[in-house]
Parts: sequence; structure tokens; C-alpha cells
Amino acid sequence: MFKLMILEKLRDKNRQVVRELAWDIGIKPDYVNMLINELQKNFLINVDRGIVYWNPADNPSTLKPWGWNLEHRMVVGSTQEVARGRGPWSVIVAEYMLLGRGRHGKKWICSLGGLWVTFKIPVDSVTASLAPILLPVILVRIFRKNYDVPAGIKWPNDIIIHDKKIAGILLEAEAFKDQILLYIGIGLNINNDPPLETTTSLKKVLGRLTPRNRFLSLLIGWISRMRKLAEDQDEIRKSYLKYLETLNKNIVAKTYSGEVSGRVVDVGEGGELIVEAQEGLKILDPVTTIELRHTK
Amino acid sequence: MFKLMILEKLRDKNRQVVRELAWDIGIKPDYVNMLINELQKNFLINVDRGIVYWNPADNPSTLKPWGWNLEHRMVVGSTQEVARGRGPWSVIVAEYMLLGRGRHGKKWICSLGGLWVTFKIPVDSVTASLAPILLPVILVRIFRKNYDVPAGIKWPNDIIIHDKKIAGILLEAEAFKDQILLYIGIGLNINNDPPLETTTSLKKVLGRLTPRNRFLSLLIGWISRMRKLAEDQDEIRKSYLKYLETLNKNIVAKTYSGEVSGRVVDVGEGGELIVEAQEGLKILDPVTTIELRHTK
Repeated sequence: MFKLMILEKLRDKNRQVVRELAWDIGIKPDYVNMLINELQKNFLINVDRGIVYWNPADNPSTLKPWGWNLEHRMVVGSTQEVARGRGPWSVIVAEYMLLGRGRHGKKWICSLGGLWVTFKIPVDSVTASLAPILLPVILVRIFRKNYDVPAGIKWPNDIIIHDKKIAGILLEAEAFKDQILLYIGIGLNINNDPPLETTTSLKKVLGRLTPRNRFLSLLIGWISRMRKLAEDQDEIRKSYLKYLETLNKNIVAKTYSGEVSGRVVDVGEGGELIVEAQEGLKILDPVTTIELRHTK
Repeated sequence: MFKLMILEKLRDKNRQVVRELAWDIGIKPDYVNMLINELQKNFLINVDRGIVYWNPADNPSTLKPWGWNLEHRMVVGSTQEVARGRGPWSVIVAEYMLLGRGRHGKKWICSLGGLWVTFKIPVDSVTASLAPILLPVILVRIFRKNYDVPAGIKWPNDIIIHDKKIAGILLEAEAFKDQILLYIGIGLNINNDPPLETTTSLKKVLGRLTPRNRFLSLLIGWISRMRKLAEDQDEIRKSYLKYLETLNKNIVAKTYSGEVSGRVVDVGEGGELIVEAQEGLKILDPVTTIELRHTK
């Protein structure tokens, strides 16, 4: 709570005197210093002679993406819900989500220093139907090309590095007549310390903090061009399959109709997995698959 | 947390559309409605056809006391600490305190709907030394005259009704040369539900919610005139003794040098209690007395 109060104070003015920060929040300067020490583990914050400084490249408030309305919030229920009240071409970034959700209503565990974002964009139906495979492809490319880390896709659309989850995608849509509004929720473990064994963060992989606005700008750039990218469906499908680490792996999946385990031998046209199980071929689709684990 | 987010949104505009509130905070409208229901137990908030309305008389932000700087905050560490960074004639009101303190560093348990305030005023040394008895007298008078409830003082400066605590005072001071800056911290159980058996609130006593700004204005009015009031020392001492319920009561006290129990027979010039204990007369002073309980 105090950490978020400090971040909030730093948001509007990048520089703040520690003493004034302490006075504003109503806690002792020593305690503020201790909290800033803690914050430095997850944010690019420096302290020099009693003045705190939040690197603007790590502070999403400083980002003014052309053609977008960016809203940077400290605490929200969920960025997806905030986006409902906003117009198209909105980006909602929150430092902390109290009701973060993942696919199938699973709770998304939030920690400080990640990027929790929702993009709200109008799309045509082709782009909308391609989004579930286009977005993981975009994320993997950013990780690989701009950060030089060996990211891959875990079916259907988690991003993993060395089989540990580094990003998740939650897609929701609203349709008005032939207009589709897409809500792209993306949770990225950048400088946070994700609490689960099965997850990792860019900080962990790179061994240092990285300015979040670079990742965010790259992402905004790609998402701005989604309609254009969606024109080359074949290329996207090929990339998706190339990055899909689940292919040819042994898996265990939990579905609404029971457990499936076996070897993934193919991906269908609609994105469904073809699994060679002991009892024969099985088909897994994203809608009815609750959980999937790669095994040896 | 969500309750405070809703209050914060209502603070600046008294009227808010429930749907917009939900969108802004990022939670579903149904959940907002439920939280507003909860808030109505402790705040004068009405809902009419999807519009929420916070009675301005209960919203401290609407108060502009002449000659004072009033700052209304949602969450702070402690109002006393916030006041340190402000000039004289500041009033800090918080809806929630994370590090609220009482006398002897005891934790003050905070709940929504009370008045948690610090007044920072410059005083002369006479007023400063009288403040510990003048302030409880002021509070008792407001309770008695303006709310018609039988408030009294529990030594040294708690305010009680039917022997249950309804208000507490924390006095701190800074001195620069002959100038004294007084930090008057007052915690008032107005519309909150205090969590302890030994405490009560105005809501409980009156059986209904009461607009907090009336109490706050009365208090500001009296505190503005403290220097003037302090001129009649005798009258204040007399009133203090008249309201002091601890006088002639049996008590048990915890002091730094052990427990004292007996009957209170007098109050000394310096405000110390004279207790008739089995082992003879005992003197209790506020500085070394940690806790005091009235017994039968």
C-alpha cells in the first residue's frame, strides 16, 4: 500500500524529495527510505542525496503513444473492466490489479514491477479471429528480436522461456453490428518477482531490471499494425507453429470432460491440438481446456 | 480498498453514475452497488436511479474553514506525520490511517466513517500547557451541547459515553525559540463501527448516522479560539474536574513501575491522579501511566 502511494507521488513528478514524500504520505522519512530500497528491486528508481528519481523510461505515465489514449493507474480492479468505460484506441496500464483474471476465470497473481495492460481496439472479423495466434507471435518476436531471449508459445497462448511462463494473454470482444471491439489483456512479467515456481520474469532471465516503456512502445507499435499484419494469415500461422513449443511435446491437460495425456502430433486449422493418447487420437480446443502442462 | 477507491471518486464530484464509477475503478457495476450498500453503513451516501450522491455535509473536502488549510486524504500513514510537512493552521483529515497511533505508541485501530484529524497550530506556552485538559473539555462540550449525549472524560484525556471510549486525543509539539507548534491529533468515532467492546460511536449512541462536517466545524471553531479560551485557566480546570468521570471511581492502572489499584480521591495541580490504594496514597501521572481502567 505504501509502495503504491510512493509510486503515485513519483508518477506525476519524476523527482521527489524523500522528506516531502514522507510528509505527504504521513510516514517517517526512514521508513520511506526503506520502502524505496524495496521498490528498487522492481522499478528503475534512483536516490541521490535525498532526492528520488523514477526513470521516465520505466514510468508508463510519460508515454504518449500517437493515436492512443494511454491511462496509467496505480490500483484498479482489472484493466479489462476499466477499458469497458473507455473509447477505442485506449491503453490501460495498472501497477496493481486487485481482481486480475486469466483465461477460464483463473486468478492472475499480480506483483509490482510487471506490465498489466489492456488494449481496446476496433478490428474487422478477420483480425479478430486471428488475434489468438497473432498476439503470442507478436510477443515472442519482441522477446526474441528486441531482448534476445528464447521465448516460445505454450498452447494456446502463454509465452514461456525455458518452459516457465513469462506472459499471458486474455482476449475478450464486444460486437456492435459488424464492428468488433477487441479487449487485449496482456500480463507481462518484466521487473516483478512472480510468486510461482512455474513462472519467470524478464528481470530473472536478463539478470537486471529493464525499462518497461520500451516493451510497451514496441507492443503498441505492433498492435497498431494488427489489421495490416492479419492480411498475411499464412505467415502468421507458420510463425505460430514455429514458436509453439507444445508441438511434439508430451502433455497432460485438464479439460471439462476429464484429463487427457499424450503426445501432441499436430495443430488443426482452428488452433486445436491433436494429441496421440493411449486410447487413440484426442482433440483439445482452447475453449474446453482448462489447464495444460508440458511433461518430459 | 475498493471502498476507499469509491470514496475517492465521490470526493471530487458529489454525484457519480454507478456505471461510470465501476468503469473507472475496473470492477463490475453489481459489485459497485454492493460496495455502496456497505458504505452506506458508515457514510451519508444515497443512490437514486443509478446515481450515487455523497451528502456534502459528510464529505470533509467540501469544508473550507476560514483561516485554515484543510487537506482531505483517503489513505495516509498518520495525519500527525502528514501535518509535519504542512504550515501552521493546517487541518489534515484522513478517511483511513495505516499507522494510526494513540498515547504511549499504542496502536489506534482505524475504521471507516470516523473522523481522524490533526490540527497544527502555533500556540503560546500557557495554551500549550493547558491543551491536555482544554481539549477534552472542548470535546465533551460539543458532545453534550450539540449532540445532547452524556459524554465525560476518562483520565487523562479520553472521551467516554457510558464508560465506553468515543474519542481519543494525541498531543505532540515542536518548539522553535519561543514559538510552539502544537499537533492536535483527534480520533472521533462518529459513523464508524469501532471494533472493540470497550468503545462506542456517535452512530451507536444516537442510533443513526450524523453528518461529520458539523462536528468538524464545531471543533475547528473551538480550536481557533484556544488561545482566548486558555485565558480563563480556572474555569477550564473546574470544567475538566466536573467532566472527569475517573474522580471518585475505583481504578486499576498499569504504569511503568507496576500496577496500581484503588480509589481516585483527587487530582493534583499538574493533572496527576491521587489514588487511595491499600498500601497508602499513590500518585499517577499521564506520562508514566500506560493504561487505566474504571472498575466497580
